[in-house]
Amino acid sequence: MPYVLKKRNIARIERERLLIGDRRAYPFERTFVACDSSADAVAAIKGMVTQGGGPLQVSLTAMEWLACRMERGDIPCSVAPFAVAFGQLKSSRPTNTTMARTLDGLLGDIRLLFAAHPDAAHRRGTADAIRQAVHDRETSFNAVYERMGRSGASLIADGERILTTCFAEHSFLLSLLFARDEGRMASVMVSETRPYFQGARLTAPSLKELGFDVTLICDGMGARFIEDGTVGRYMTAADLVCADGTVVNKTGTLANAVCARTFGIPYHAFSMAPDLSRRTRKDIVMEERDGADVCLAFGHPTTESDIFGRYPAFDIVPPAFVTSIITAEGVFEPEQIGAHEFHRPGDRIVEET
Amino acid sequence: MPYVLKKRNIARIERERLLIGDRRAYPFERTFVACDSSADAVAAIKGMVTQGGGPLQVSLTAMEWLACRMERGDIPCSVAPFAVAFGQLKSSRPTNTTMARTLDGLLGDIRLLFAAHPDAAHRRGTADAIRQAVHDRETSFNAVYERMGRSGASLIADGERILTTCFAEHSFLLSLLFARDEGRMASVMVSETRPYFQGARLTAPSLKELGFDVTLICDGMGARFIEDGTVGRYMTAADLVCADGTVVNKTGTLANAVCARTFGIPYHAFSMAPDLSRRTRKDIVMEERDGADVCLAFGHPTTESDIFGRYPAFDIVPPAFVTSIITAEGVFEPEQIGAHEFHRPGDRIVEET
Repeated sequence: MPYVLKKRNIARIERERLLIGDRRAYPFERTFVACDSSADAVAAIKGMVTQGGGPLQVSLTAMEWLACRMERGDIPCSVAPFAVAFGQLKSSRPTNTTMARTLDGLLGDIRLLFAAHPDAAHRRGTADAIRQAVHDRETSFNAVYERMGRSGASLIADGERILTTCFAEHSFLLSLLFARDEGRMASVMVSETRPYFQGARLTAPSLKELGFDVTLICDGMGARFIEDGTVGRYMTAADLVCADGTVVNKTGTLANAVCARTFGIPYHAFSMAPDLSRRTRKDIVMEERDGADVCLAFGHPTTESDIFGRYPAFDIVPPAFVTSIITAEGVFEPEQIGAHEFHRPGDRIVEET
Repeated sequence: MPYVLKKRNIARIERERLLIGDRRAYPFERTFVACDSSADAVAAIKGMVTQGGGPLQVSLTAMEWLACRMERGDIPCSVAPFAVAFGQLKSSRPTNTTMARTLDGLLGDIRLLFAAHPDAAHRRGTADAIRQAVHDRETSFNAVYERMGRSGASLIADGERILTTCFAEHSFLLSLLFARDEGRMASVMVSETRPYFQGARLTAPSLKELGFDVTLICDGMGARFIEDGTVGRYMTAADLVCADGTVVNKTGTLANAVCARTFGIPYHAFSMAPDLSRRTRKDIVMEERDGADVCLAFGHPTTESDIFGRYPAFDIVPPAFVTSIITAEGVFEPEQIGAHEFHRPGDRIVEET
């Protein structure tokens, strides 16, 4: 994996502090935000220090970190400080259902561990078991990423140029890597993804680091390269997939998906596990971020100070514009999603394995 | 008209120099680039100091300026220096057919004036006649803008929110103003228009200056606001309209036009006079600007220095995605364009009036 997706660069424990890789500064600086408490970690996540799959990994590493602090006696040997931290971390990204499920499952395990050995004398054993529960989940997620990557790779043809938006992380990069391993070399056109430029800052450098041919474009340009045949496929992550195949992803996705359908190229979204509890878009409450962010580019005002922007962070892509959804359990057409019973990564995997 | 469209802020003669309003710096600075020669003016136009209708007005003011210099005896009293300057100015924007036609027509008039009075003794009279020819053309363009504005206004409903891309200048702003005069108040959602941010820097402040409610969005966001009904109409300028109704305009236009058609709102392009000599898109050679511009935002790198961008400056919008074209001679559906004989502004209007 490239620099930004290496586990130690997303979050790590160093000198009794939790360090979070600062994706806002990447690739210009490779810096970390140091946290002394889970409240610090929550503030960092809310402040977009990390994004995408970052908050999930930060939360897992934060649990390992709490286990170490408990082992040292810095915090009480009970479930309480873990429960508080979990609640805070979940609230840092209310729309991130994978993180919520993972934290709920992990907290369940931690409750069982403390119930089995409530005495502080068993401190070290409990800390070890928590660390193991975290590692099991990381291993499980890596297996999910690998399965999604295999599925994604199966769709990629040799010599194909793929358009992407924002930063589709492990699943997308593994798709490209597995396809390359199998002798099918793709190149990528990356939409810069205003206002935070995740495409320009995270996706393009990561693809280059992995040795792929990458071209950067502005967010309004995808249509032209779909229409003229420069790109043959559109692939993105999905923040949420509903039971009817509706895809929720970064703003900018809808325009490209509509143009993909109009001009006849496929659009695929990566989703570990669609959320069947949301039947349609009516079951989604969409987050709208601060419109002031739209009026800035790397801190530079783009317009006069008394002009207001709007920043709908996510697009809702109706299933009619989605060719297929690449999940941990294979590739599904949108209308097939509702009928499948998905294993949800983040559930209490320790008990299952 | 707002600051950037006032004639004296586009180009003016001051202390024997030609000043060109620097649209690159607006609205953060209200500065001018001073030119001592027509070569300086050409360099400024090529360097995007001015854009849209700017180069046309700069060229007209440059002719007035040459006439003044001839009157003072700074340059020879002959057609030669004018012909050289015209050739240079035309080459500064090879795709700007209105400017080319206007300059060709004006040069024809200037040739006739020198042929009638070749002697330097008639210097002042010739200079006056050149200035008059320039002013007649300016008057003619203003009449064209007004007619286009009236046509545009007729399409706008009260309370409607209109999406726009880049800077559609006089015709669009006059449409909004005339509609308001008639009691129909529209608001505008402006796409920032990367990589140069003309929407954010020129359109949004100009609309605000005129008292319109304006909201800024990033270029990938138009689709969402078309789909959810926030905007009811999409309007842009057109750099070129072919006989079959194909519209050429700033990158970003195609995605919004496709989404407008898909989600059922109209898309209108302003064009003084379609170019019937181009039958279809096959007759267009498209300019692609330096991809390095895509990797910058206000001079700040958006990605690593060894990543390449592509900057297709213009989108080609097939007629199937165009509702109508607003011309100086009324509103036409794309399929009606080829059958109409358009008066082309910029022809030798002095002889015609």
